[in-house]
Amino acid sequence: MKKYFRQELYDLDAYVPGEQPDPDSKVIKLNTNENPYPPSPEIQKEIDRIVSQGLLRRYPNPVSRDLRNEIAKHHGVKETQILVTNGSDEGLAILFRAVLGKKNTVVTPYPTYSLYPVLTEIQMNGSRIKKIPLKKNLHFNFKKLAKAKGALLAFAHPNAPTGILEKKEDLVTIVNQFDGIVLCDEAYIDFAPENSSLIPEIKEFGNLIISRTFSKSYSLTGIRVGYLVGSENSISLLSKLKDSYNVGMIEEYIALAALKDQAYFLSNREKVIRSRENLKKRLKLLGFGVTQSEANFLFVRPPQNNPKELFEFLRKNNVFIRYFTDDISKNFVRISIGTEEENNFLISAISDFLKL
Amino acid sequence: MKKYFRQELYDLDAYVPGEQPDPDSKVIKLNTNENPYPPSPEIQKEIDRIVSQGLLRRYPNPVSRDLRNEIAKHHGVKETQILVTNGSDEGLAILFRAVLGKKNTVVTPYPTYSLYPVLTEIQMNGSRIKKIPLKKNLHFNFKKLAKAKGALLAFAHPNAPTGILEKKEDLVTIVNQFDGIVLCDEAYIDFAPENSSLIPEIKEFGNLIISRTFSKSYSLTGIRVGYLVGSENSISLLSKLKDSYNVGMIEEYIALAALKDQAYFLSNREKVIRSRENLKKRLKLLGFGVTQSEANFLFVRPPQNNPKELFEFLRKNNVFIRYFTDDISKNFVRISIGTEEENNFLISAISDFLKL
Repeated sequence: MKKYFRQELYDLDAYVPGEQPDPDSKVIKLNTNENPYPPSPEIQKEIDRIVSQGLLRRYPNPVSRDLRNEIAKHHGVKETQILVTNGSDEGLAILFRAVLGKKNTVVTPYPTYSLYPVLTEIQMNGSRIKKIPLKKNLHFNFKKLAKAKGALLAFAHPNAPTGILEKKEDLVTIVNQFDGIVLCDEAYIDFAPENSSLIPEIKEFGNLIISRTFSKSYSLTGIRVGYLVGSENSISLLSKLKDSYNVGMIEEYIALAALKDQAYFLSNREKVIRSRENLKKRLKLLGFGVTQSEANFLFVRPPQNNPKELFEFLRKNNVFIRYFTDDISKNFVRISIGTEEENNFLISAISDFLKL
Repeated sequence: MKKYFRQELYDLDAYVPGEQPDPDSKVIKLNTNENPYPPSPEIQKEIDRIVSQGLLRRYPNPVSRDLRNEIAKHHGVKETQILVTNGSDEGLAILFRAVLGKKNTVVTPYPTYSLYPVLTEIQMNGSRIKKIPLKKNLHFNFKKLAKAKGALLAFAHPNAPTGILEKKEDLVTIVNQFDGIVLCDEAYIDFAPENSSLIPEIKEFGNLIISRTFSKSYSLTGIRVGYLVGSENSISLLSKLKDSYNVGMIEEYIALAALKDQAYFLSNREKVIRSRENLKKRLKLLGFGVTQSEANFLFVRPPQNNPKELFEFLRKNNVFIRYFTDDISKNFVRISIGTEEENNFLISAISDFLKL
């Protein structure tokens, strides 16, 4: 058959996203770090306003202006330091395209968010990823990261799938030393202690870009809204690569309503954190090795060192968790924090498993 | 200042989208080909269902499965021939990336949709556009198109900004002769006579890709949903380049509800077409040169050959239309079809202008 596309596209491996059962199916879904609670009830008013006024027939604002301004206010930065994107995925994709020319190198700790290697390959220009394995205690290997050279250094903060939050001063040292752009992906930062974010460091470091999302802490995975924060100069350059109208109108205003409802946000976050700490204790009592996660998921090592069997047993019992097969992760499973009820069911299913 | 990004990004001109006054501002907005009528009232039920069940905290289906299946049924093709995208803009961006390696050529008639040159430049790999000017009668120059060589041929059908619909057999001849991928952009096809679409030709031509959108004929510009139709092989390759969850859940189900409500769609379309034909007549009576548009806009030449002045006069009177400055378009203005009331106001403002 004649090949009409670039040869590299035929060679490219397609990204396979995590399993998504139908949203209304009855499984307990603890495999993709979604929030167990619904988003702010305030979003309903905004939806009603937009739909009842027939505004959906109009183009959205091309830079999601109202949402962008509120995000800027929220973080105490200028609105020209914010690029609102179609999920943080679009922001990450834009950043990788902006940085990676022919045969560039992306440095990442390993494991970290599994999308970075995909975004490197997808450039189809010979760019490659250089993985720096985590230390035995699952923390970043800062000595090796400090020596690594590349056009882009990308990591999640807290890291995924471990949930571990590195010290700010260690990260800042690396940002300072690294010669290229540093992406600090803060998808889960809202579940970490206050003031953990690197956003205030942007003032000092022109090479630092932060990505954020409304998916997890604002319970809005379904609407696909995220953003990048960086210097005005970086954001202006990155904006050139976005689609003209990349975020829908209804999505902009749902995210805006959720962001403005900080009372709901804070109480929801508190509930998730409380469940997380509670689940940590209960799993430890059952003999699990539990990492010090500051995210909305736990990375845990089963007492009988049989994570794959645990994953499969739970799956049969309609509890979906995540199992990764890379060298380090293969000894663990990752469990998203559910509601108290879901966590109780999980613990009871795990207890059944351990008695097998 | 240190340059952290690819040199090509600094050199890239940013795309400037058409002017968008606030959606609730009082201007008569006939500049961006939006539909003057609101979308199907059926979308409200789907929004209520998703929000009330708290589903927005969940990931959407990664391939917008339910919508994709309905689109496939609608066109009588397989669901694996459909790629649902974040507006047709994302589909076009994916296609250009999939085709354009180093220093490839994109062939287009000229003028046509102004995004194609932008999507070529944005590859940042030396790919270039080859423009084949329209004939004096504003139709495609098929003789010259037949001789052009390139990796991609892109055109709008009906064409923009002229609104002219080329004969299917002429287009099919070109698809057959062209050595690379042919993009037939059918953003406005629903306003053309039935059976004008090239979708049925995909069966025969492996190099043909059609793009569609819910923005115009379904009055859903605000939600950003479009799609590509092609061979199973092409769509499978193009899917590798999309973000994992590129379309939001609420957007998928709004588009699905609109697509299912064909009665509303047909009556809305009928209204727009009737207004278009009526506006054609009235502008002709005022002495305008009016092209045979089959889209939801008109491309017209003012009797005193002063399109720029007309554009500016109307702007001062709160009627936004579009004026392009390229060699051919500079003699015309483009006017989107509004409601009957808006068209009356337009005609009265134009009459004032002509008496100046």
